[in-house]
Amino acid sequence: MTDSEDALVLFMPSGRRGRFEVGTPLLDAARSLGVYVESVCGGRGLCGRCQITPTPGQFAKHKITSKLEHLSPSGEVEARYAKRRALPADRRLSCQAKILGDLVVDVPTDSAVNKQVVRKRAETRKIDRDPATRLMYVEVVEPDMANPSGDLDRLRQALEREWMVKGARIDSLLYPQLQSILRKGDWKVTAAVHDDGDGPLITALWPGLQQRAFGLAVDIGSTTIAAHLTDLMSGRTVASAGTANPQVRFGEDLMSRVSYVMMNPDGLPALTEAVRGAINGLTEKVAAQADTTRDQILEAAFVGNPVMHHIFLGIDPTELGGAPFALAVSGAIHMPARDIGVEIHPGGQVYVLPCIAGHVGADAAAATLAESPHRTDRITLLVDVGTNAEIILGSKDRLLAASSPTGPAFEGAEISCGQRAAPGAIERVRIDPETLESRIKVVGCDHWSDAPEFAEEVPSVGVTGICGSGIVETIAEMFLAGIISEDGVINGALAERSDRVFANDRTYTYMLWKGDGIDITINQTDVRAIQLAKAALYAGVRLLMDKLGVAEVERIRLAGAFGSYIDPKYAMVLGLIPDCEVEHVAAVGNAAGTGARMALLNRGHRREVEQLVRDVEKIETAMEPKFQEHFVNAMALPNKVEPFPRLAKTVALPRKQPRSGGEEGGGSRRRGGRRHR
Amino acid sequence: MTDSEDALVLFMPSGRRGRFEVGTPLLDAARSLGVYVESVCGGRGLCGRCQITPTPGQFAKHKITSKLEHLSPSGEVEARYAKRRALPADRRLSCQAKILGDLVVDVPTDSAVNKQVVRKRAETRKIDRDPATRLMYVEVVEPDMANPSGDLDRLRQALEREWMVKGARIDSLLYPQLQSILRKGDWKVTAAVHDDGDGPLITALWPGLQQRAFGLAVDIGSTTIAAHLTDLMSGRTVASAGTANPQVRFGEDLMSRVSYVMMNPDGLPALTEAVRGAINGLTEKVAAQADTTRDQILEAAFVGNPVMHHIFLGIDPTELGGAPFALAVSGAIHMPARDIGVEIHPGGQVYVLPCIAGHVGADAAAATLAESPHRTDRITLLVDVGTNAEIILGSKDRLLAASSPTGPAFEGAEISCGQRAAPGAIERVRIDPETLESRIKVVGCDHWSDAPEFAEEVPSVGVTGICGSGIVETIAEMFLAGIISEDGVINGALAERSDRVFANDRTYTYMLWKGDGIDITINQTDVRAIQLAKAALYAGVRLLMDKLGVAEVERIRLAGAFGSYIDPKYAMVLGLIPDCEVEHVAAVGNAAGTGARMALLNRGHRREVEQLVRDVEKIETAMEPKFQEHFVNAMALPNKVEPFPRLAKTVALPRKQPRSGGEEGGGSRRRGGRRHR
Repeated sequence: MTDSEDALVLFMPSGRRGRFEVGTPLLDAARSLGVYVESVCGGRGLCGRCQITPTPGQFAKHKITSKLEHLSPSGEVEARYAKRRALPADRRLSCQAKILGDLVVDVPTDSAVNKQVVRKRAETRKIDRDPATRLMYVEVVEPDMANPSGDLDRLRQALEREWMVKGARIDSLLYPQLQSILRKGDWKVTAAVHDDGDGPLITALWPGLQQRAFGLAVDIGSTTIAAHLTDLMSGRTVASAGTANPQVRFGEDLMSRVSYVMMNPDGLPALTEAVRGAINGLTEKVAAQADTTRDQILEAAFVGNPVMHHIFLGIDPTELGGAPFALAVSGAIHMPARDIGVEIHPGGQVYVLPCIAGHVGADAAAATLAESPHRTDRITLLVDVGTNAEIILGSKDRLLAASSPTGPAFEGAEISCGQRAAPGAIERVRIDPETLESRIKVVGCDHWSDAPEFAEEVPSVGVTGICGSGIVETIAEMFLAGIISEDGVINGALAERSDRVFANDRTYTYMLWKGDGIDITINQTDVRAIQLAKAALYAGVRLLMDKLGVAEVERIRLAGAFGSYIDPKYAMVLGLIPDCEVEHVAAVGNAAGTGARMALLNRGHRREVEQLVRDVEKIETAMEPKFQEHFVNAMALPNKVEPFPRLAKTVALPRKQPRSGGEEGGGSRRRGGRRHR
Repeated sequence: MTDSEDALVLFMPSGRRGRFEVGTPLLDAARSLGVYVESVCGGRGLCGRCQITPTPGQFAKHKITSKLEHLSPSGEVEARYAKRRALPADRRLSCQAKILGDLVVDVPTDSAVNKQVVRKRAETRKIDRDPATRLMYVEVVEPDMANPSGDLDRLRQALEREWMVKGARIDSLLYPQLQSILRKGDWKVTAAVHDDGDGPLITALWPGLQQRAFGLAVDIGSTTIAAHLTDLMSGRTVASAGTANPQVRFGEDLMSRVSYVMMNPDGLPALTEAVRGAINGLTEKVAAQADTTRDQILEAAFVGNPVMHHIFLGIDPTELGGAPFALAVSGAIHMPARDIGVEIHPGGQVYVLPCIAGHVGADAAAATLAESPHRTDRITLLVDVGTNAEIILGSKDRLLAASSPTGPAFEGAEISCGQRAAPGAIERVRIDPETLESRIKVVGCDHWSDAPEFAEEVPSVGVTGICGSGIVETIAEMFLAGIISEDGVINGALAERSDRVFANDRTYTYMLWKGDGIDITINQTDVRAIQLAKAALYAGVRLLMDKLGVAEVERIRLAGAFGSYIDPKYAMVLGLIPDCEVEHVAAVGNAAGTGARMALLNRGHRREVEQLVRDVEKIETAMEPKFQEHFVNAMALPNKVEPFPRLAKTVALPRKQPRSGGEEGGGSRRRGGRRHR
């Protein structure tokens, strides 16, 4: 080949470049360099997904002079597409445009046809697309008496010829439909081909060109089930919905649901049906939101804690209720959605993320996948607080996981004035150390209680109670104001100074908020409940730090609802989590849901989470004598734990807020920001 | 290793031999030489399937002196087994017996525990065993808090550790049952592992040691459905049953069933349900015969003509009713039995053999597999006569297939006195050329009609009609007796000589049998029907011979019911089949059923039939101008076809019967036996 026969092409923004023979279609060039350009129609100029923008100009740095005339002129196929769908003037279909000379080409992150409204609840994290199911448009050879192969065999040949898909199996549900779909599409059809490492499987088939394919990511929480509908073609989350887990009527917390199964012979089917029914309801809802139907949902990924995971799969969770807390299945699960009563496309495929251990579920695995401590050098602590706290600690060298029985106090249960985070619930608290007077903020109102607007804008229900994040902040502020001692006793002597503190039986109570009809108070039992919960959490974290041999952590990620609302400063004041530079502490929201979406959109992430779950060292806190010791020490406020220095009561806290999910300072740790030493 | 450390072991009857280190268990030695010794329990001395017999003595030819003391003495494990199950005195468990010196060992074709009554209808053909599903007993590690893997993961590990099965998937139906089965078996379980080239799949699981596993082979004929239950552990057919195809109520022949589907919107589901229901009824029946249950049937293999194949799979057969006779699927099909309503074990797997073409079905493919023309040097003709005749011609170099529209005359339909082969039907005929008097034999009586016992032993219904094989013989005898001319006209001049021949409208009729209440006659229309049928069959055969470029065939195999009862001599007199040495013509019974059993018992045979179907050249008779020419020529008796010599009317037929399925004379063709030239 001489120089005159090939040309240099640079793809932006990836920066990949290569020399190609003149006449090569741009799509082929992009693919040969590993630049991802979508295409459903197999280069026929039908789907319009392979749009690119040629960028003319002198690119001195790259030594390229790119000219528009270095692409073959737009022909009949593109004209036909532009008539049907409107092709922006600067765009070309890369399957049609051939390289004639040196070029710089811009690959838009989404081609115009992909545009979808991004819903407000959608997560914005960008996930590389490599879903297990892809759409493939093919033109099947018509039947011929002289060559009497079956319709399916010719469909398979077309998939091999046009998409390099060899030996595809087919969902048995499609056998009866094959003939009519092929004939309805005049032998042009779109196949959904699922391949998750176990060979290609045709799961759906439509006449003609089908360009929509969705995936469902579901986080099955004990309290709430959340579903996200993701466009498999663009990777975008197009709809989200949540619902209360209807299993609540069988028991508020996990263990009462396990008991229900143990006590009732029909308990398990009822619980399984309840959760599957709720998921199917959500599916209907997100499909409607995205203006599609369940038949266009081809993949679903599920996460949940071990009990939810088992019940969803129809597995008796009783074994998880006692030692040795044996999981029936811990590895990832692939199955047809219909085998498990999930009502998406009849050929749709389900992926359930793996569990880590009997108390550390697929939700924790998914959160770990999303936060990727296994991909960083820095010692990362990932905590998801619920009735159990799931704790992951480590870095790419070594990762540990444990669960700690925090109980429901952090969720506002077992607290006298506790409630769920709902309008009217106290979520922020400040206590003046001199006057012991409080200021509060409640869910549903943007103003502090000492602002003039508060009275007007407070939710109509008034101030109704205190939620999980509010409790942590209240106890911490009480401690910082000297209302609570290091061993958690409310100081009765203060009753002389302020009527905020008053005697109640043989202990004292603090009046946090005096409302119209309801007083919000914190009594000694409430303080004890929080002490127990935080001691359990901290003891678990500390045990893992001992095992890992580290005295401090470099990053902290707080997952879940509690983690999203809690102020990390106060979590450190109380000693829920070890000390860490506050800018390296971040709430990561529904990390489990993000992990589920990652597994939905990218097969590589499935292999990654499977490997990660195998690699992570599982620590059973109940088997560790040290856990009890750490627990007892951590009952103190903040924690009687060496070698970490105690927090002096009088040291002012830095007022800077942690940047949620923001960029971190890399290797340069700003020690000045730390509040002790 | 020195000579003193190893020993020579010879396994009989295979004759395989090898040197093994002293101390090697015999089972391991056998396996390393590829000598098949069954074992379910993984060498634990539990299942008793690995029995062998050591043979002491001087084996000069093999230079071995075999002594009983060259095996380790029988120990506790074998004593325990012998107590439970009775171990013959000369038998040892090869998993326990270790090699101590030179040995000759006999591997019984079946170990004692395998003994099953062989039912009278079972086929006797020996098929090497390598079924897609195997039983594997494993001891699973108990759950451990310190190593919190799931029950399934530990089951998988056990399968890998003990059986080298890597990365087994599991049927999703088993998820909810795993825990209780493992605990019920005290962590000792037997798994059924299916692997048909698509990776291992756990399809069933039992607590403890499970030693029974069956497979079902089903031939779905238009008229009859036959099921054979095969012991997957021994390869033996243990029960057989047949039933009329209940689709008959929707149409007697295939095309009327296709019409029913075309005319009735609910026609297809009704036909599909009918055939599946009949199969499930047969399954129940054979399971009961073999004293087992449907839950122990783990595999099923199906064959049928294309229309039956499609309807069974729930596929509309309409396309098969007209050109281009497009099959929806021609390749082999694997699917879970439950996806297709086949009621065996809920995790049982179905294999449907591939079809060859729109008129040459999985039954023909199975018959070809069973008769293996693709494995011989000799030009073989395989014919299965039904409403269509399926014709396979060739050898290992090249194989051709076609279908010819013979119509139902050979089955006794469209013949004035025709009937199915049932007691009272005439099946053998001799006509005296001088007197034109006839002798007959009927189904259900062993004597010719001129024997004194005939009157006594004839079935109570009397002589009721004439069946397919009887018609062929009658027409041939009529021709040989000069009653029919070469162009098929009944010679009216004979009416003067005998009242057997009499005028009937403008043609003549032959009185074959004058019974008490019913006369069995052959009229001119009957002769024409047989002429048309045999012309179609012969034209198809001749077309394939032309294509293959051969003037004669070396072996003929007649499959199916018609092929079993017809006398090949008469088939050659009439010219149904080309001339061939009569000892090289054999009826092979239900070859399709045999092929189904082969696919059931040996995965290699599945790959073989899949390859064979790809390789065979499909000839569509409707597209071949020569077919019509051959057809017209073959209307004559025997056939006006060059270059084959005509059969002279006066030449006596050899009286020797063909040996059904017997040994053939290899390369030395005895020309003296031929009846012409």
